Amino acid sequence: MTAAAGGLVTAERLRAFFEPRSFALIGASDRSAFSKLVLANLVDAGHGDRTHLVNRRQATVHGRPAHPTCAAIGEPVDLAFVMVPVAAAVDAVRDAAAAGARGVAVLSSGFAETGEEGRARQRELLAVAEELGLVVLGPNVLGFVNVAAGVPAMALSDPPAVPGNVALISQSGASCGAMKDFAALAGVGLSHVITVGNEAMVTVGHLVDHLVDDGATEAIAVFMEGVREPAVFAAACRRAAAAGKAVVALKAGRSELAARAAASHTGALVGDDRVVEAVFGRLGVIRVDTIEEMLVTAGAAAHTGPLERPGVGVVSISGGACDIIADLADAAGAVLPELAPATVRRLAEALPPYGHAQNPLDITGAAIMDPELWRASVAAVGADPGVGVVVAVNSLPWRDGAPQENRASFYGQRYVDAIGKGMRECKVPALYLTQVTQPIGEAARAVLESGGVAHAVPGLRLGVDALARIAAWSASRASDTAELGAGPTVPCAVERVPFSEVDARELLVSAGIPVVPAWHVHSGEEAARAAAGCGSPVAMKIVSPDIAHKSDLGCVRLGVTADRAAAAFEEIMAAGRVPAAGGARLDGVLVAPMRGGADGQPAVELLVGVTRDPDWGPMLAVGLGGVFVEVLDDVALTPLPVSPARARALLTGLRGAALLRGVRGGPAADLDRLAGVVAAVGRLAEELGPDLEALEINPLRVAGAEIEALDVLVAWRP
Amino acid sequence: MTAAAGGLVTAERLRAFFEPRSFALIGASDRSAFSKLVLANLVDAGHGDRTHLVNRRQATVHGRPAHPTCAAIGEPVDLAFVMVPVAAAVDAVRDAAAAGARGVAVLSSGFAETGEEGRARQRELLAVAEELGLVVLGPNVLGFVNVAAGVPAMALSDPPAVPGNVALISQSGASCGAMKDFAALAGVGLSHVITVGNEAMVTVGHLVDHLVDDGATEAIAVFMEGVREPAVFAAACRRAAAAGKAVVALKAGRSELAARAAASHTGALVGDDRVVEAVFGRLGVIRVDTIEEMLVTAGAAAHTGPLERPGVGVVSISGGACDIIADLADAAGAVLPELAPATVRRLAEALPPYGHAQNPLDITGAAIMDPELWRASVAAVGADPGVGVVVAVNSLPWRDGAPQENRASFYGQRYVDAIGKGMRECKVPALYLTQVTQPIGEAARAVLESGGVAHAVPGLRLGVDALARIAAWSASRASDTAELGAGPTVPCAVERVPFSEVDARELLVSAGIPVVPAWHVHSGEEAARAAAGCGSPVAMKIVSPDIAHKSDLGCVRLGVTADRAAAAFEEIMAAGRVPAAGGARLDGVLVAPMRGGADGQPAVELLVGVTRDPDWGPMLAVGLGGVFVEVLDDVALTPLPVSPARARALLTGLRGAALLRGVRGGPAADLDRLAGVVAAVGRLAEELGPDLEALEINPLRVAGAEIEALDVLVAWRP
Repeated sequence: MTAAAGGLVTAERLRAFFEPRSFALIGASDRSAFSKLVLANLVDAGHGDRTHLVNRRQATVHGRPAHPTCAAIGEPVDLAFVMVPVAAAVDAVRDAAAAGARGVAVLSSGFAETGEEGRARQRELLAVAEELGLVVLGPNVLGFVNVAAGVPAMALSDPPAVPGNVALISQSGASCGAMKDFAALAGVGLSHVITVGNEAMVTVGHLVDHLVDDGATEAIAVFMEGVREPAVFAAACRRAAAAGKAVVALKAGRSELAARAAASHTGALVGDDRVVEAVFGRLGVIRVDTIEEMLVTAGAAAHTGPLERPGVGVVSISGGACDIIADLADAAGAVLPELAPATVRRLAEALPPYGHAQNPLDITGAAIMDPELWRASVAAVGADPGVGVVVAVNSLPWRDGAPQENRASFYGQRYVDAIGKGMRECKVPALYLTQVTQPIGEAARAVLESGGVAHAVPGLRLGVDALARIAAWSASRASDTAELGAGPTVPCAVERVPFSEVDARELLVSAGIPVVPAWHVHSGEEAARAAAGCGSPVAMKIVSPDIAHKSDLGCVRLGVTADRAAAAFEEIMAAGRVPAAGGARLDGVLVAPMRGGADGQPAVELLVGVTRDPDWGPMLAVGLGGVFVEVLDDVALTPLPVSPARARALLTGLRGAALLRGVRGGPAADLDRLAGVVAAVGRLAEELGPDLEALEINPLRVAGAEIEALDVLVAWRP
Repeated sequence: MTAAAGGLVTAERLRAFFEPRSFALIGASDRSAFSKLVLANLVDAGHGDRTHLVNRRQATVHGRPAHPTCAAIGEPVDLAFVMVPVAAAVDAVRDAAAAGARGVAVLSSGFAETGEEGRARQRELLAVAEELGLVVLGPNVLGFVNVAAGVPAMALSDPPAVPGNVALISQSGASCGAMKDFAALAGVGLSHVITVGNEAMVTVGHLVDHLVDDGATEAIAVFMEGVREPAVFAAACRRAAAAGKAVVALKAGRSELAARAAASHTGALVGDDRVVEAVFGRLGVIRVDTIEEMLVTAGAAAHTGPLERPGVGVVSISGGACDIIADLADAAGAVLPELAPATVRRLAEALPPYGHAQNPLDITGAAIMDPELWRASVAAVGADPGVGVVVAVNSLPWRDGAPQENRASFYGQRYVDAIGKGMRECKVPALYLTQVTQPIGEAARAVLESGGVAHAVPGLRLGVDALARIAAWSASRASDTAELGAGPTVPCAVERVPFSEVDARELLVSAGIPVVPAWHVHSGEEAARAAAGCGSPVAMKIVSPDIAHKSDLGCVRLGVTADRAAAAFEEIMAAGRVPAAGGARLDGVLVAPMRGGADGQPAVELLVGVTRDPDWGPMLAVGLGGVFVEVLDDVALTPLPVSPARARALLTGLRGAALLRGVRGGPAADLDRLAGVVAAVGRLAEELGPDLEALEINPLRVAGAEIEALDVLVAWRP
């Protein structure tokens, strides 16, 4: 547990919370689907003797004796379910504490999700729980299932009972049924199902942190609408990444419509999705778009762990599947590497003469007569130096009722056996991939187990997308760990005062960021001399710590020739003295040569800036300026810190990156130098400390190795 | 049947081919999985008495008597399966004809898919079949299943037996098993499964044409690697679109890797994928990326038919599903319209006070107690004037073994009943959508049927993607039908000779395409006068029908001032006379004012061109010039003809379309006028007739309503 978690939600308390041995259902009633389901689940799991019903009015509920209060049970209670109407929830929590409960799952709704009044109720609930030392799950939850511990403490029908290695966390309780159904269909085993509802106390971040230390859990799937306590979440995700446990998040709200929809039925503010995307990427959180992708990706990641190499080696008996996979991989960014000459030779020996030893590999119908071809091909592809994971694409029986004979003969136990043998010879992880989405049910699992195949994924799109994401996660995990390990930087001794452009230029220079040469002048005569010295038209801007929008006030002149410079100086100073400038302090004018256009040197303009996100802190943005940012919104974002390597990746990932490689006759940008400058901007922003609101260079002019900041802005938080 | 089909493949012959009553399996053998499967299927379907085995050496095969030849059967044979080794295939075809067969399905492989020798064998096979008047399916096929007619004439295990309304055509036989399995899982009923293999005679186009007239078929799913006989395919797809029967194609080869993969295991050349994309769009072919999308989209389209409006109205009991759908719709381009005030009022009466009457609509947990809320909401959304199709998102039982009691209570027959009622009140088509991908098996179908729900789709992504595609198809179908109905244009009387720039400019002017003013000069003196008349620097280019690449030879001068024009004239003419110009005919120089940059008028440059695709004929390309085409390859393609409305859609669909709306301080382009010019380029290309290789305007300069072709090229086919 990281220091950030703090408060009541400690590692020890959470462990205890998820392993209760006795239960009270406060507000159990014959009309409540909640108490009926929770009771049935606990009884079925063998906890009937230690499950108590509490109802203030009725002595019998669900055909069992009920107690008027928790305290009246007369036995200690570990976990209390609060199912009473919202107005009675606080009393129920006090009652639970009186019976010695260490935790409560508040199933009642009517809290923060309903508006201001509800938020007040939730604050009261939280305050009471904190006072009494209780861990609170919810409110507005359905509870949880700890599958490994055999605790189905949840209002969920048919809870998972066979322990698996994927933990599922969901802000939505209602969708949990569909999620665990799909997990069962897809052959994804669950270690936990935890609903978090309004996250009044226990947040997704606390749970991720808890599950990183859970021996049964190898990957964590999260369905969320917003991120509460970003710092806790971020720290937990970093620990998960370091542990090689993938966090796979379905976070709704990419589109405006979804953001509005989410706002209408939860209290969650979804935030700027591009920031979320950037932050999740840095935290090693794998983002997905559907429940199916979430569970399949988590299931696959739990099986493979981080990949050593991104290359996917595909072995299939269907040429059609090879075509489809190649297209899907291209779209998803999965790498299907060319096979090494040694692999090609090895495969050529195994394949029929009309076969082609390539990736994706079609082993052809010859494998129908000769299943050994499967083993040899999977093993050969798995030994290729460019391959980090192998997938074998084949059918699987999908009807649990199918006759055994059918299963063994047509669906081909012998093929699965051969595939399993090949997989066991691989030094890299291997997955079985079905050609179409299908249930991986009993019949399929029996065939797989008998063949020694550890994990199967249903369908080409889900499989290819999952592997592309796992590969990207594996790669970023390595680089991010190194980068983030640099530790906190020490703020430099800069006063938190408004900066004039001259001050800001000095700051950049001190941070090693090149700026366009300029003359700071205090008279028309000095201005004319400076302009003449430039030998080209100049840009002139007022110097004032108080004027942010210089152009709006007429305090900027562009393309001024030497003979006009003196007059321009006077005009600019006069403009700075108008009432609209509000008595701004004026400190002369900055004279700098005009760049681009007139001097004939083709250049690319970038914007590089750092702004503060309310949830996630300073974010660095880099984009191609001019038409690219205006028309295409071609900007890459990342949280700080930013290493030169990451800066380079951001730059080359821009849609207009070809401009930096020197199309249109311009020189190629010196990418190493440019990446260094971008990283220096990030470092400077860190050094300026938490009071920095924005540091923006726009434009940063790049002409080959010539890089200069032409304009800079520094703003502090109000 | 369209005229293009021609030859032996007539509508009547195809109908007869797919309704055979007697069968011969030539080359049946105990070791052949093909003959074993085909025989078992025909026997199971009640055709055992009229199914005959033919084996030259063995008197008994599969425990049944076998005949040495077809002719020896002594009874007429409608359809013969050729399963003999490739070298004996032609003899087998002759034997089939001798027994009176009208068609053969050639399962043997070793033909065009294996190289030049195989192609020769295939030509021979085709020639013999044509001589004997036989329809040939294949070679390299598995046969077909005519589900409605009860003819499983295919080497496919467990062929579909319950007739549905989606016909499945596949170039790949091997993948058919996975396809029909997924169709069964997804509740997509099949009318036919037809494998086409190498398409020596019967092509996908012939089959689409046949199925347009098939009463059992409402939509057609096609898995293909390349398109054979594009003209037949195109005509058939147009008929399908006119009939409102969607053709849904999974055509592999979007990526280079897939194109290479396909080339290695089929004879199919995949062609330029961007052309395929453009052509399919115009033909009303819905393109998909996976087998799942293909079948689900075809199943949904067979149910909905063309939509009257693109708007999708979503009703769900899960807020989480609403969020996911909103994001998926945004990504897929599905329209979730805002609800009309009347709908909002109607819903507000039905919903609980904390509900929000919006689209996607979360009807909240209140529907658990009050299923009527489902009916009222589905009906209200279905009556909204912006909604063209309604989806109700809910769970469905997914385990066929689930106890009946469970099914009725937890999974909620009463909810499905209420949804079904609401759907029957809708005037627009309605679909049931499960929250996660799951089998729509027996249990689910029983619940749906009992509730009167006609069609269900498994999973949000598949459902949303399918509806987005069906909506786009519905819209394009309407516009394309009108546009294509214009009929062929009459070629204009232009001689097929090399064009000089002067000739090409005249051609544009005659077609109503504006060109930059220019002076055609024949002396230095005239050049100087022209340049002076322009009042700005000029561009000077040689006029010659024989010099295509003028710049390479130094026959172009840009930015020439009036005082330099005479000298430039001499230099250009001298450059045209060098030996490298190959004695080109010279006809003076064209002098035109320079545009852009210097005159300060901000303008956008486009390229507009028509080139001939070997498969699909003339294709019009329009793109933003300069950095956009170089860096982003931002070009839209479409086959001719191009109406102004379509031209406008192409322009506004460009990624950099914001430039045309006048970002960067420039004026907004006159889109109507621009679309008219683009359409005129297409019309001119049509009029120039089939010998035109390329007609290219680059750049077309657009400054507000001012539109001018600055440079033009006309090239004829060699």
